[in-house]
Amino acid sequence: MNTKLKPLRKHLLLAGLVALLPATSWAYAGSDAERIQKLEQQVNLLLERLSAQESQLNQQQQDISETKAATKGNVIASTNGRSLTFKDADGDFSFTVGGRLQADAVYHNEDDIKLGDGSRFRRAFLDIRGTVYRDWNYRFQYDFARPGGSDNSQRGIRDAYVQYTGFTPDITVGQFKQPFGLEHLTSSLNTTFNERALTNVFNPDRAIGLGLSHGGSNWSLSGGAFGEKAEVDPADEGNEGWGLVARGTFNPIIEKDRLVHLGAAVLHRNPEEGDLRFRERPEANVTGVRFIDTGTIGNVDDYQQYGLEAATVLGPFSLQSEYINTRVQRGSGDKNLNFNAWYVYASYFLTGESRGYNAKSGAFGAVRPNSTVGQGGIGAWEAGIRYSRADLNDGSFIGGDQDNLTLGVNWYATDNIRFSANYIKVLDVDRPGNAADGEKPSIFALRGQIHF
Amino acid sequence: MNTKLKPLRKHLLLAGLVALLPATSWAYAGSDAERIQKLEQQVNLLLERLSAQESQLNQQQQDISETKAATKGNVIASTNGRSLTFKDADGDFSFTVGGRLQADAVYHNEDDIKLGDGSRFRRAFLDIRGTVYRDWNYRFQYDFARPGGSDNSQRGIRDAYVQYTGFTPDITVGQFKQPFGLEHLTSSLNTTFNERALTNVFNPDRAIGLGLSHGGSNWSLSGGAFGEKAEVDPADEGNEGWGLVARGTFNPIIEKDRLVHLGAAVLHRNPEEGDLRFRERPEANVTGVRFIDTGTIGNVDDYQQYGLEAATVLGPFSLQSEYINTRVQRGSGDKNLNFNAWYVYASYFLTGESRGYNAKSGAFGAVRPNSTVGQGGIGAWEAGIRYSRADLNDGSFIGGDQDNLTLGVNWYATDNIRFSANYIKVLDVDRPGNAADGEKPSIFALRGQIHF
Amino acid sequence: MNTKLKPLRKHLLLAGLVALLPATSWAYAGSDAERIQKLEQQVNLLLERLSAQESQLNQQQQDISETKAATKGNVIASTNGRSLTFKDADGDFSFTVGGRLQADAVYHNEDDIKLGDGSRFRRAFLDIRGTVYRDWNYRFQYDFARPGGSDNSQRGIRDAYVQYTGFTPDITVGQFKQPFGLEHLTSSLNTTFNERALTNVFNPDRAIGLGLSHGGSNWSLSGGAFGEKAEVDPADEGNEGWGLVARGTFNPIIEKDRLVHLGAAVLHRNPEEGDLRFRERPEANVTGVRFIDTGTIGNVDDYQQYGLEAATVLGPFSLQSEYINTRVQRGSGDKNLNFNAWYVYASYFLTGESRGYNAKSGAFGAVRPNSTVGQGGIGAWEAGIRYSRADLNDGSFIGGDQDNLTLGVNWYATDNIRFSANYIKVLDVDRPGNAADGEKPSIFALRGQIHF
Repeated sequence: MNTKLKPLRKHLLLAGLVALLPATSWAYAGSDAERIQKLEQQVNLLLERLSAQESQLNQQQQDISETKAATKGNVIASTNGRSLTFKDADGDFSFTVGGRLQADAVYHNEDDIKLGDGSRFRRAFLDIRGTVYRDWNYRFQYDFARPGGSDNSQRGIRDAYVQYTGFTPDITVGQFKQPFGLEHLTSSLNTTFNERALTNVFNPDRAIGLGLSHGGSNWSLSGGAFGEKAEVDPADEGNEGWGLVARGTFNPIIEKDRLVHLGAAVLHRNPEEGDLRFRERPEANVTGVRFIDTGTIGNVDDYQQYGLEAATVLGPFSLQSEYINTRVQRGSGDKNLNFNAWYVYASYFLTGESRGYNAKSGAFGAVRPNSTVGQGGIGAWEAGIRYSRADLNDGSFIGGDQDNLTLGVNWYATDNIRFSANYIKVLDVDRPGNAADGEKPSIFALRGQIHF
Repeated sequence: MNTKLKPLRKHLLLAGLVALLPATSWAYAGSDAERIQKLEQQVNLLLERLSAQESQLNQQQQDISETKAATKGNVIASTNGRSLTFKDADGDFSFTVGGRLQADAVYHNEDDIKLGDGSRFRRAFLDIRGTVYRDWNYRFQYDFARPGGSDNSQRGIRDAYVQYTGFTPDITVGQFKQPFGLEHLTSSLNTTFNERALTNVFNPDRAIGLGLSHGGSNWSLSGGAFGEKAEVDPADEGNEGWGLVARGTFNPIIEKDRLVHLGAAVLHRNPEEGDLRFRERPEANVTGVRFIDTGTIGNVDDYQQYGLEAATVLGPFSLQSEYINTRVQRGSGDKNLNFNAWYVYASYFLTGESRGYNAKSGAFGAVRPNSTVGQGGIGAWEAGIRYSRADLNDGSFIGGDQDNLTLGVNWYATDNIRFSANYIKVLDVDRPGNAADGEKPSIFALRGQIHF
Repeated sequence: MNTKLKPLRKHLLLAGLVALLPATSWAYAGSDAERIQKLEQQVNLLLERLSAQESQLNQQQQDISETKAATKGNVIASTNGRSLTFKDADGDFSFTVGGRLQADAVYHNEDDIKLGDGSRFRRAFLDIRGTVYRDWNYRFQYDFARPGGSDNSQRGIRDAYVQYTGFTPDITVGQFKQPFGLEHLTSSLNTTFNERALTNVFNPDRAIGLGLSHGGSNWSLSGGAFGEKAEVDPADEGNEGWGLVARGTFNPIIEKDRLVHLGAAVLHRNPEEGDLRFRERPEANVTGVRFIDTGTIGNVDDYQQYGLEAATVLGPFSLQSEYINTRVQRGSGDKNLNFNAWYVYASYFLTGESRGYNAKSGAFGAVRPNSTVGQGGIGAWEAGIRYSRADLNDGSFIGGDQDNLTLGVNWYATDNIRFSANYIKVLDVDRPGNAADGEKPSIFALRGQIHF
């Protein structure tokens, strides 16, 4: 650039010298001829300076055009402070990469049944999503904390789908969460307690299928037809089960920090080879022990579930409850079964924040702390209490009836980092004839979580 | 920026006022003294304006230089509409991230042997490749749909190599596809049918080794020495097998949408501990059943394969065929064995596209639909028919002789998204004495595929 | 851009023509009136040219401002020639993606015990790290070469932690290397030999825990409390072990290519359920055979380790040594045990480079070759020799006492690509009563390594 500047600088110098002339000649005026000669000199110098400027202008123009051309069509990176997104100028293409990590340490004050204390990763997601062309989106999540195991499972694969948003409703094909249950559909990043309530025994999890979904500013509708989650064992030649699911939500009140959520969902399913099993850990995941477990229920024709959801947010205070009923229809000679589960919980932000909510999906979202640790703040502090119960006993069928009380504290250090402590008291297990009957352990669970 | 503009604007205003003067004085001319004075005023204003411009020019120059300096050495992101590539200005460094997802749902109209219906992910690749320095390239692909399993396998690792392109030929070290077989070397994204033909029973798959490759506008040559694919079981203390492979292809015709491909390949291999097994699923992958299976052939000294390939593309029409012969040399007391397999297929694009082809690697490439769904188009539609046969019977040795007929439809919604439906009719299995003998199931397979 | 240039070009043309006038009129002077008229014409043209320039200047100003606005807040990509880093302008956010691949081929000249020759991936890391907000960092590494296995292990997860650097010392929570052992804490990318020495039998590996670390220009201190590495088997209800570790290092000399490193570390640990096992492969990893193995030592109360480290770098020459002593305290009725291991090695760069070192972590770092292959250079060449011994015999307890001699050559083709050949001679195994007793195999190991 220096060499290009030189001609201009020379002119500036000359111009500076000449600029002194008119100042003096002005005062003394001089003869017409002298004045004209001075003007002619000045005009000539002006012409030279102008020409030099024109050269520089054109050079700059070229530089600017080159910069524009070089960046035209570039993909631009941006971030929301968590994940990293790349987009082209047309918006035809996008790519986002993120992840989540949850590390747990859990201590058990056991009753009779041994529960192993320890630490492990609860989730370790890589999360890739994007747009390949306009309305064609995709998402792929893998959970490195769920290794393959001896059954050759693909269970590390979480969301893995293609979505077309060019129609109403949106069409999704692949593996994704079946639309059933408020806590089930709220990301594990945003559930108030470390583990979902005992109702989780009935949550249908992700499966491969086709889904339709649509929603507005205060409602959502979604449904789909599903096979099973990515096959556990290709060497198992049983025909996979299949099912239908539908869910609707409505928000009579939805304001910045005031919300009422109402939801209902139904599910019909034919299980693989007529075999069905419900079982659940005690709202803690380092142990492999399940106090409630139906074992394999054979001779099942199909089963139906319905779920009811209600929640409210009033500033820092929130209340949430769900009830799920499950009816198992069995073939001749075997009794139909009726199970149910429910929970209710309250949470309060000591630091004044409100829970986030997404009306289009009818589920709770992220909490944004008012202040952040590392910027003079203390983050967000939330306290919660939950009662939760699942009843897998029906008449003489004894899968177990458990109720839990949980106390929880969440510390949101930043938008992306949360530390949680949960105390879970198993109030009772009613499962006559099984070792789990009457077990009342207490469990203390710590979690560190980052979302990027 | 505003403050910098102000001086210039003031001058523009003054200049605008003064600019009116000469227009009037021109018409009326006036006395010489008046005209000179006016000129002197104008020239002084011109000088001021010029100086103001010079300031602005220099300011802009600085801005432009700063922008150039700030972006110098930056890595620039771009996309081909699928994967995302980062390059530095010198081209010394590049990094590309992409992936592929294939979800299958398969229904079997069984004969006697049970084939489990169901859905699963056929492939879920993360694909990272790049240049670390000039001619030093690498690639790493992991298939999340192939979990570890109980055998502690590294089979999720697909391509994983370093390549040096500073010489002729290119040198590749690591794990990559052994150069044998047209359909084998065509990416699973671009095969005409969901699964490769029954000839796949002899395809040598990827292995860890050293390869040399070179190619021109209408030919390719490649070869290598290979161990086995990433070791299945480190606790197994058998010495790995090793082999040599070479392949050449030639295109007597290669135009935009007219192509003739001819290819031949040879392979020699000493299997681990003298044990060898060939077996293949029925061109469908949700089931684990193989109708043809040699079982473990012991006492093998070595084996040789040769393969012949021919294909043509005539606009939307394409014809492709392969033949593979395998000769197993066994030690004293055991009979040598001779197996073979072949297929032939035709495909036609109803929407007029042609199959893509890459002469340098001698394999078929991607299809680019003429119109895209979501932009008023219908994508590309392709119909295909294939006959495929593998004969693992030799004299009294009965591994099975199977022949299949496949009808396929592919819908390429965009460059990156393909939906496929295949109907596979097992015409016959000739395997006397085995349960598979005479099996003639029909199979209906659906696939959704995205490539990013 | 063309249309904007046109007005200016027109003016340039006019100006060019007019510029000829004064040159002639100067020579011949003419009457005052003629000279004034010429001046008036020139000044008017000058005004037009100035106005045109002003338009263009303002247009350019807008372009420059737009470019600045468009890139403001963008995340900028950069590279160190290996990994790829994204940062926002404030430095509040960063994201780095990289990886490493190590492919091994190993041949064994066996004695009595069979050691399987073969090739496999030693490591295949994806490595993601970043800053989510100012002082809050994270790192996640996954090793695709360590599949899940039948024990449902999370052992593919390597570093996985959140770190807060807003205090002194830095606080790390999650899974990371326990601070013990110089060779252990030196990345596998930068160890002089393919595998760590036999002292590795006592290295504590990564574990989930909380660590504190701080360091200066010639010292480092770190410590932590740890559970176990990510749980192998959640179905195993034993309570995890836990331990405390601390390490300090000091550099009396630390210059560009002259270094003295001194270090010491202590470890106390209570193993899970009182069971402890030490075992190690023969500095080669394709085989699963361990010549030394304590088997499960039961009735262990706790154990302590101390380690001493010394190393020096003198230009191309380097010397390094470590000694580790392990004392196992057992309950009543069982004898306490005392094991130890040590190594010493020398390395020399034939091409004159020096080993890299990081004082803040007290561990060796990367080698930068003076010249690079592909740019006329030959890379860096290093030769090394190591003697290594581990003694797991104590009195009547016979875990084995092995000593190895290793010769190694490393070729650093570029900053990121290294090829290595190691010859390992097992000098002796002293383990009376076990098949391994007296085994003296030689092992030839090749490695190709890329780091991106």
